[in-house]
Amino acid sequence: MAGTNGHRLTVVVNTGDDVEIHGLHVSPDLDSVCYWLSGVMDRQRGWGRSDDTFHATEILRDGFHAEDAWFNLGDRDLATHLFRTRLLRDGLGLSAATAAVAEGLGIQWTILPMSEDPVTTTVEILDESGAARTLHFQEYWVLRRAADRALAVRYLGVERARPAPGVLAAIGEADVIVVCPSNPVASVGPILAVPGVRDALAARCDRVVGISPIVAGAPLTGMADKLMPVAGLEVSAAGAARAYEGLLAAWVVDEADRDLAPKIEEQLAVRVAVAETIMSDDEVAEALAKTALELVS
Amino acid sequence: MAGTNGHRLTVVVNTGDDVEIHGLHVSPDLDSVCYWLSGVMDRQRGWGRSDDTFHATEILRDGFHAEDAWFNLGDRDLATHLFRTRLLRDGLGLSAATAAVAEGLGIQWTILPMSEDPVTTTVEILDESGAARTLHFQEYWVLRRAADRALAVRYLGVERARPAPGVLAAIGEADVIVVCPSNPVASVGPILAVPGVRDALAARCDRVVGISPIVAGAPLTGMADKLMPVAGLEVSAAGAARAYEGLLAAWVVDEADRDLAPKIEEQLAVRVAVAETIMSDDEVAEALAKTALELVS
Repeated sequence: MAGTNGHRLTVVVNTGDDVEIHGLHVSPDLDSVCYWLSGVMDRQRGWGRSDDTFHATEILRDGFHAEDAWFNLGDRDLATHLFRTRLLRDGLGLSAATAAVAEGLGIQWTILPMSEDPVTTTVEILDESGAARTLHFQEYWVLRRAADRALAVRYLGVERARPAPGVLAAIGEADVIVVCPSNPVASVGPILAVPGVRDALAARCDRVVGISPIVAGAPLTGMADKLMPVAGLEVSAAGAARAYEGLLAAWVVDEADRDLAPKIEEQLAVRVAVAETIMSDDEVAEALAKTALELVS
Repeated sequence: MAGTNGHRLTVVVNTGDDVEIHGLHVSPDLDSVCYWLSGVMDRQRGWGRSDDTFHATEILRDGFHAEDAWFNLGDRDLATHLFRTRLLRDGLGLSAATAAVAEGLGIQWTILPMSEDPVTTTVEILDESGAARTLHFQEYWVLRRAADRALAVRYLGVERARPAPGVLAAIGEADVIVVCPSNPVASVGPILAVPGVRDALAARCDRVVGISPIVAGAPLTGMADKLMPVAGLEVSAAGAARAYEGLLAAWVVDEADRDLAPKIEEQLAVRVAVAETIMSDDEVAEALAKTALELVS
């Protein structure tokens, strides 16, 4: 991973899809951020650590038929969950546990969970029999591969969740705030739903630049197209921008969406820039970051 | 692993060296028995599963500097600890959790923990500075490699421990009871210390045959020689037999200890048989088992 050229970087991360697997506290988004920033991410697969093995999970699934074995945890990845869970059981908060994980991975930047209080993203679906059921986001996403008809997404507990220490200060003090190209409903939505976060961002909206996760009408990775309609959002670079209405000074769309730029500028009153947003290598990622930073500097 | 030719087999196993590692309930002796009986034991190394990797432990040790990473857990082995710990947290007792582990490993025999109540084997040592310290058995054994001068071995909690369901019945009903060639202080001692077990064995002593873990004055594996003197036992096939005084009908010593047989017979009033006790392969193990069974049948 490229460095930040001397700039300080604080990442505020969704914990709504945290899940207990085999009794371990798994924080998929915190881990993805930490693995990317420490250079151990499996870039091909898009989750977990590179060169990982799955010996424990294979035995849990095939030998023990453990109920959580649908959630694939690599052996190297397990180290993170074991370490974090132990720290949490010892009484540390998720912020301190996250800092310890980041330090163990050699990360010099600040990684903050959005909240230390439990928030659980759930998806209400219609199952095969036509009955409504509520699933943990990971069950919907990983186990059932977003194949069910989704009716609603909720962030359980979010109304009582407090921003984790440092979150509001980071938003208040940042020179530039980047809303990364991520699922606006599943990944960014929970963060914005933590009381205080949306207002803090709105107060700094002249410093906020977002990057569209939707390119040419489809999510670049993941299945954001499944959940955006549930939240009333069109699956387009314009629809994703609308998720952040009132929070953005600028919005970056991919070159494939150049035609949408004028419409977004007009409808949302934001500056729209066009850039190569598909981060196929570090150079593209760096250029994109530079574009985003310059838009609000 | 060879079968039991239609005989039922119940194994009562020491849990005094159970230890919490990374928040997981690890039962080293239960696991060794289960791994041996399911054929996945690493026979060369003498612990853990064969062909295992140590990716999680390596990262916990080298990356996260986790305090428990001195205890080597293989990745495949971790599946057992994750599965067991989850079952225990869900409210199952150690017996049911052990049965589930055994079933998952395809074991058709009955593996019983000596007790479902916590018993912890500790070793009191003199440390480098000459001060007395009490260590968990695993800390003494694995972390410090039994290098300290041991003063005393205790089975903490054993006076309140009840035999696990099935233990006394198994002893009461067995045609033959074999005290396996294991550390008399660290592995068999805790079982005998569970209230009721020694008496149950004594009542069936005509059916009890033991196999010496000491061959030619030294333990075949492990470091029993470090703890036997602490318990006042000579490190010999005779000393090991003395650990079970009043419980044995017969005692099997290795061919290397043929000369000791008359003395043991005389001093302990047991039949002593001489056999090849070094179980270098399944044929030797089977022949040894046959010898043991025939001695008290």
